[in-house]
Amino acid sequence: MAKIGLPAGTRDFLPEQLIFRQKVISIMKEVFERYGFLPLETPAVERLDVLSGKYGEEADRLIFKVLKRGEELKSALAKGGELADMGLRYDLTVPLCRVIAMHQNEIGFPFRRYQIQPVWRADKPQKGRYREFYQCDVDVVGQEAPLADAELVAMTYEVLTALGFSDFTIRVNHRQILSALAEWAGIPKEKQPGFFAALDKLDKVGLESVKREFETRRLAVESIEKILPVIEANSLDFLKQALGHTEKGKGAVDETECLMKYATKLGVPAQAAAYDLSLARGLDYYTGPIFETILSDAKIGSVTGGGRYDNLVGLFTGKEVPATGTSFGLERIMDVLAEKGKLEETANVTQVVVLPFDEASLTYGLEVAAFLRKERVRTEMYPFAEDKMRDKFGWVSKRKVAFAAAVGPDEMKERQVTFKNMATGQQVKLPFGQLPVELKRG
Amino acid sequence: MAKIGLPAGTRDFLPEQLIFRQKVISIMKEVFERYGFLPLETPAVERLDVLSGKYGEEADRLIFKVLKRGEELKSALAKGGELADMGLRYDLTVPLCRVIAMHQNEIGFPFRRYQIQPVWRADKPQKGRYREFYQCDVDVVGQEAPLADAELVAMTYEVLTALGFSDFTIRVNHRQILSALAEWAGIPKEKQPGFFAALDKLDKVGLESVKREFETRRLAVESIEKILPVIEANSLDFLKQALGHTEKGKGAVDETECLMKYATKLGVPAQAAAYDLSLARGLDYYTGPIFETILSDAKIGSVTGGGRYDNLVGLFTGKEVPATGTSFGLERIMDVLAEKGKLEETANVTQVVVLPFDEASLTYGLEVAAFLRKERVRTEMYPFAEDKMRDKFGWVSKRKVAFAAAVGPDEMKERQVTFKNMATGQQVKLPFGQLPVELKRG
Repeated sequence: MAKIGLPAGTRDFLPEQLIFRQKVISIMKEVFERYGFLPLETPAVERLDVLSGKYGEEADRLIFKVLKRGEELKSALAKGGELADMGLRYDLTVPLCRVIAMHQNEIGFPFRRYQIQPVWRADKPQKGRYREFYQCDVDVVGQEAPLADAELVAMTYEVLTALGFSDFTIRVNHRQILSALAEWAGIPKEKQPGFFAALDKLDKVGLESVKREFETRRLAVESIEKILPVIEANSLDFLKQALGHTEKGKGAVDETECLMKYATKLGVPAQAAAYDLSLARGLDYYTGPIFETILSDAKIGSVTGGGRYDNLVGLFTGKEVPATGTSFGLERIMDVLAEKGKLEETANVTQVVVLPFDEASLTYGLEVAAFLRKERVRTEMYPFAEDKMRDKFGWVSKRKVAFAAAVGPDEMKERQVTFKNMATGQQVKLPFGQLPVELKRG
Repeated sequence: MAKIGLPAGTRDFLPEQLIFRQKVISIMKEVFERYGFLPLETPAVERLDVLSGKYGEEADRLIFKVLKRGEELKSALAKGGELADMGLRYDLTVPLCRVIAMHQNEIGFPFRRYQIQPVWRADKPQKGRYREFYQCDVDVVGQEAPLADAELVAMTYEVLTALGFSDFTIRVNHRQILSALAEWAGIPKEKQPGFFAALDKLDKVGLESVKREFETRRLAVESIEKILPVIEANSLDFLKQALGHTEKGKGAVDETECLMKYATKLGVPAQAAAYDLSLARGLDYYTGPIFETILSDAKIGSVTGGGRYDNLVGLFTGKEVPATGTSFGLERIMDVLAEKGKLEETANVTQVVVLPFDEASLTYGLEVAAFLRKERVRTEMYPFAEDKMRDKFGWVSKRKVAFAAAVGPDEMKERQVTFKNMATGQQVKLPFGQLPVELKRG
């Protein structure tokens, strides 16, 4: 017998799960398109020279590589050369930058795209962490801050609302505020990444712990004393006072204020978006506004995150192209929605099973199925004609199909159909060509 | 500057193409679900021991393999062991069989699934042949012939009709008819595959050429003489006379007749499906009815193909499970539809661009965008506030967006919006909160 099993960290999506996933995805897509974003798809495999060196050394080790073939493989083995020439996509941002570079003369700017596709990482699999998982990215390439960034915040609000979330906060910060702040407090360049990393933990561990981590990371006492009140205040007004005299600080604070104002005008209520000085986000490539969404009632970290990356596209095009984007944590969102029992009623399944009493009424049953399908009713033929009638009804109810359309010798002779509502048990006999009211199209 | 380029035989789908693809796919999905099929997704990567040895040696060579990592790779290199542990999915049938084997206690039978996902083959890339391409499979697992097979034929008819094709033929044959015929004509077992392959070319090369190929393949003269009239007749009635006395032949002919009758009852018109003795199909694993669709007005081979494979699932489960399925040639179908200019109007794009006259009216424009999106109108904000008004309108019309919503100081003061129909040039000034009739929801 052939071996069976899945590679570690991968999953099958059986129909029931997948219908749920597809529903969530289609809600997201509808909002993306309402905000003027269009879909993009790129291949699962990319050239290794496109993927490598974009994410840092640790990430490079997590890229799945595709073995060379035939003569090329033989020669690589003989000469000790590179064994692979392609890799599985590690994220959707580098492919986007490659697309921009390759198609810059065909596409109009700003390029507003969304992309929902799997990515692969050779991470150690564990609960909630997969080696093949979906990313869901929305980006604007070719437009400066802060309007594009404000639209991303508004779109994020709308997506989460459309998915049924009501209690969440979109935290907003600006990379240039953080770096102006560090300079103002006299934190030297080489200690800034550590400073940001410590600051980023504020909402999890509290101010005291953050202060201790500053000390552990050997920030100067004067720097710490200067910066703690600013962190505690956590306000753009306060920052304006502190940083208003520096060009970088003033520009970044103004841009962030403008972003928040635009987001409000675009319909984001005050309680759903907040400036947060402690938001730093991990990726090195961010250059401007950054944002992240936390659900108030779920202890699972952020469900969206992103920011401006004005230098990344330039790596591929050779000229600077402003860009900003955000990513929805599809797997996490799916987990929370499933836990909450939201979107449970999956309308998207078979509505009627046609049950012929016997072999003779089967052909009449086929005509009934053809009619139902013509009326856009999702219809299945009962598969095992020789079963007992009671077993047939049991099978329909086990499958949670709403209606059985029973056809026996009587129905066949009179050209009628007996529709049974499986939930209520109610039956109605109708002439061929008529539908019970519950099955009529809206 | 970073390298750019795509791996050979792979493609990006830019928004315009992708919207078209997604439209075709959504039409197919709607029909699949109307016929009671539910979606399934499996990982792109499978264990090599699952993939290997299922498709024959030549196909095994076309499987892309994923390199082992870390210690495992070192050890394999040192010992000359297998360098890969996973492969990219080669088709959707073997993953289906693996899913059945792994989840046989969770899923109900018959399992009616469709799957639309990419597959990878290390074939030489050429026009219309890709290394990463989509397959689109519909299968019924756990149900005997011929009802399930007839439903596949009817579903195929409906999908192609829904896509706008009107002139096509679904050819139907039965593997057991072919093998009974070969036995009846005295063709020895080892020559049967060659006999089927020659027969399969009938519609392309004609009877004379097929006869010559029989001779080249050294079929006995008596066999050829016996079989030519049957091929020429190409009729189930004729076959019944010839093979009716053998159990295998009679069973297969009866089953095929019944399949055709069921398909008719399910709504397939007589001219859209036809018995065709010369249809053989390449794959070894078929065991019963086989089918294939040819478009009359396109010289591109078949656009759908499939058949019954009662022994394949058993390879994984250890017990026989009847199964039948068909596959839509998505890439070919897409090509033909694109050539015909069908489905050209892609409704699925941005409907309005909001154009603020200046920086001051921008915030009012954001409110207008928020209102339009609330009304489910797909809306984009004009990205470059400082551009001249004429350039702004030019940009909207270049993007083929139907409406511009212009807002200047006057509109802002009076809380109005000027909607311009970009096709007709007509303008209408409406109070905030009102939509032009063309943008109202159906």
